[in-house]
Amino acid sequence: MFRKLLTFEEAKKTIEEYFKPAFLGDEEAVLLEAYNRVLSEDIISALDIPGFNRSTMDGYAVKAQDTIGADENQPVTLKVTGALNIGEQPQIKVETGEAVEIVTGAPMPEGADAVVMVEDTEHEDSELHVYTAVTSNENVMKKGSDIKKDAVVLKKGQVLGSSEIGVLAALGLKSVKVQKIPVVAVLSTGGEVTELGRELQTGKIYDINAYSISTAVIESGGKPVYFGVVPDDKAALAKVMQTALTSADMVITSGGVSVGPKDYTPQIVDSLGKPGIVVYGIAVKPGKPTTIGFVCDKPVFSLPGHPTSALLIFYLLARPLILRLAGRPTTPMKAVRGFAGARMFSAKGRRTFVMVKLEFDKDCRLIAEPVETGASGAITTLANADGFVEIAENEQFVDADQEVEVTLFRGSAAKV
Amino acid sequence: MFRKLLTFEEAKKTIEEYFKPAFLGDEEAVLLEAYNRVLSEDIISALDIPGFNRSTMDGYAVKAQDTIGADENQPVTLKVTGALNIGEQPQIKVETGEAVEIVTGAPMPEGADAVVMVEDTEHEDSELHVYTAVTSNENVMKKGSDIKKDAVVLKKGQVLGSSEIGVLAALGLKSVKVQKIPVVAVLSTGGEVTELGRELQTGKIYDINAYSISTAVIESGGKPVYFGVVPDDKAALAKVMQTALTSADMVITSGGVSVGPKDYTPQIVDSLGKPGIVVYGIAVKPGKPTTIGFVCDKPVFSLPGHPTSALLIFYLLARPLILRLAGRPTTPMKAVRGFAGARMFSAKGRRTFVMVKLEFDKDCRLIAEPVETGASGAITTLANADGFVEIAENEQFVDADQEVEVTLFRGSAAKV
Repeated sequence: MFRKLLTFEEAKKTIEEYFKPAFLGDEEAVLLEAYNRVLSEDIISALDIPGFNRSTMDGYAVKAQDTIGADENQPVTLKVTGALNIGEQPQIKVETGEAVEIVTGAPMPEGADAVVMVEDTEHEDSELHVYTAVTSNENVMKKGSDIKKDAVVLKKGQVLGSSEIGVLAALGLKSVKVQKIPVVAVLSTGGEVTELGRELQTGKIYDINAYSISTAVIESGGKPVYFGVVPDDKAALAKVMQTALTSADMVITSGGVSVGPKDYTPQIVDSLGKPGIVVYGIAVKPGKPTTIGFVCDKPVFSLPGHPTSALLIFYLLARPLILRLAGRPTTPMKAVRGFAGARMFSAKGRRTFVMVKLEFDKDCRLIAEPVETGASGAITTLANADGFVEIAENEQFVDADQEVEVTLFRGSAAKV
Repeated sequence: MFRKLLTFEEAKKTIEEYFKPAFLGDEEAVLLEAYNRVLSEDIISALDIPGFNRSTMDGYAVKAQDTIGADENQPVTLKVTGALNIGEQPQIKVETGEAVEIVTGAPMPEGADAVVMVEDTEHEDSELHVYTAVTSNENVMKKGSDIKKDAVVLKKGQVLGSSEIGVLAALGLKSVKVQKIPVVAVLSTGGEVTELGRELQTGKIYDINAYSISTAVIESGGKPVYFGVVPDDKAALAKVMQTALTSADMVITSGGVSVGPKDYTPQIVDSLGKPGIVVYGIAVKPGKPTTIGFVCDKPVFSLPGHPTSALLIFYLLARPLILRLAGRPTTPMKAVRGFAGARMFSAKGRRTFVMVKLEFDKDCRLIAEPVETGASGAITTLANADGFVEIAENEQFVDADQEVEVTLFRGSAAKV
């Protein structure tokens, strides 16, 4: 088994080489459930919207030519022959010299091609005095001017926000086809890891990673399925991995890849299918013991046991794959510029990620304060960090007060 | 019935006067379902984390005083008496002159108070040569140093993101108490509005608003419940409103508040309970015919029928109330600075909101291009707008190229 430590860039390139973002298929979703999902079909309008010429003002539907020359001093007088309400199909026709009362949104009656605003008229009995001339189509929204029949309104791959759901409703669609959500199997290994709800024995810790990773999976457009803490036993782990691989689109384990005879995970991944492990350790800090493999095109990430390291590597390397399996754009994580609150050291020859908390100083400068990572197992590191500062392999440190870019964790509470 | 048009600021003040953000109660949620919910209890740690003194390095657990004076030239030699793995309760004790092999994360054995890193040692048979002195507690994470027993770890009102879920998992909590999600009844009125899935008759439109508003309710931390399109009949509407008010925490209707004898909504709200309608029209454009009432402390918003106007007023006035009912912070909508792509006119005496689309020009300046709103019923206006520019009541226009602040719609696809 090869054990060459890859650089961060090599690891990313290797993943790119093996990852085939398969289309996972689609499913029908009723409109409200389609919210925040990814459209998997082009939406072609079966309707003109509006479906009729429509008044955009309260006023009177007229023939524009009847109003030629009308002004404050020389009103044109027309005969009001009826009234049209919104939602009603007009049964009335406007002839030369006639006008029909109309409200905003109501369909134009036959024969009329413009609307005179109510404030430009005076209505006495059946007589209407028009004080302003209108041109053809004035105050009229033409049939199909909003959306044309047969037009492609939304494209496959579009993420459906409120506006898009509004457009789909306008077309009268009760449901649309959306991409399936990638299922991500999340499981934990390591003899010290205890499932929630069980009694904690001395020397053991609760299964933090499965939960922080699962929520990060949700934030990345995936559906986590918890496979529990797998006992430190090769056969048991192989069996769970096999089930995970057949039922999920991707597998993420944490713990159990650091050292020692009990670290079977990579061996099992290799044994389950080709190509097996393709990244065996990465020259990063934290996160060095990460392994990444593919079994029949399904990515398998084995993240370190330390909560901060595991979540960091998840964000850096696993999240983009979930987004792509979900058919979502892989927009980079948001970043802000700030100043280092203290000197930050890098690990020799490794791409280093320093967890930081953001604070404003008294001059309103944004300060990136390193979060205590002496104990990288510390769960509070995770809770306190707003993001991280990246230090390149060939740099020894970032000096205090130096300007830095802080990449923000998604779902971070930082208000910047 | 009073019909005084309030200014935008008066309308906000009036809402503030009548709105009582009641605590809607809480419910138990298992950890993954608690994600993105609002915690409704203080979380006090029942555990020390770590629950034991823990090695933060691979190496050897020793008595620090045994290593005094050790260096490259004068190593100290200790006797290795055993090995400790992660997750195991130590059955071994370190006496003076002894060392125990230990891995990162394993509990410290009794008698040892420091860990010498493996790279600072040489191990021959049962002899360990130590080349560096360590001080007491070096490479040891003390019991409770991450989270202390009885400490308040998370506070009531905290929104639970991935980090917080990780912290709750560390404490072994399978479920927590979270605030109930406010239920918002969404219903549509107006004879022209047709429910999705039905045949569209001439002069009618599909129910866009219920859907765009429902998704905006979700984005605001509420749960929308669709009450359908209510027929244009006073008794029917009164009945539906009554049901909506008893089953939901807030009611949002759209359509049917503009003009004409068919606009019963405000009358019905007034008849259902005190104080009834408190805002009867607002001097804004668009959105003037908005009415807002309270029935037994429950807010009732009647938004205009035009999709863009309805959603705009929702964002400006209804969204903050839903956030507060949900126990969430009412962070202002995000804004960016740009330059007006064209002169934008205000409506005389009314606070004007001009829908804009954001684009970069060739000099990489962010340009706020007004979106065609000639027909404010246009659903494409909604789909094309990234946000809006606000023009004060006493200003006549914003000039082309003038710097403007663009408030962004939530869920907008704009990448800025």
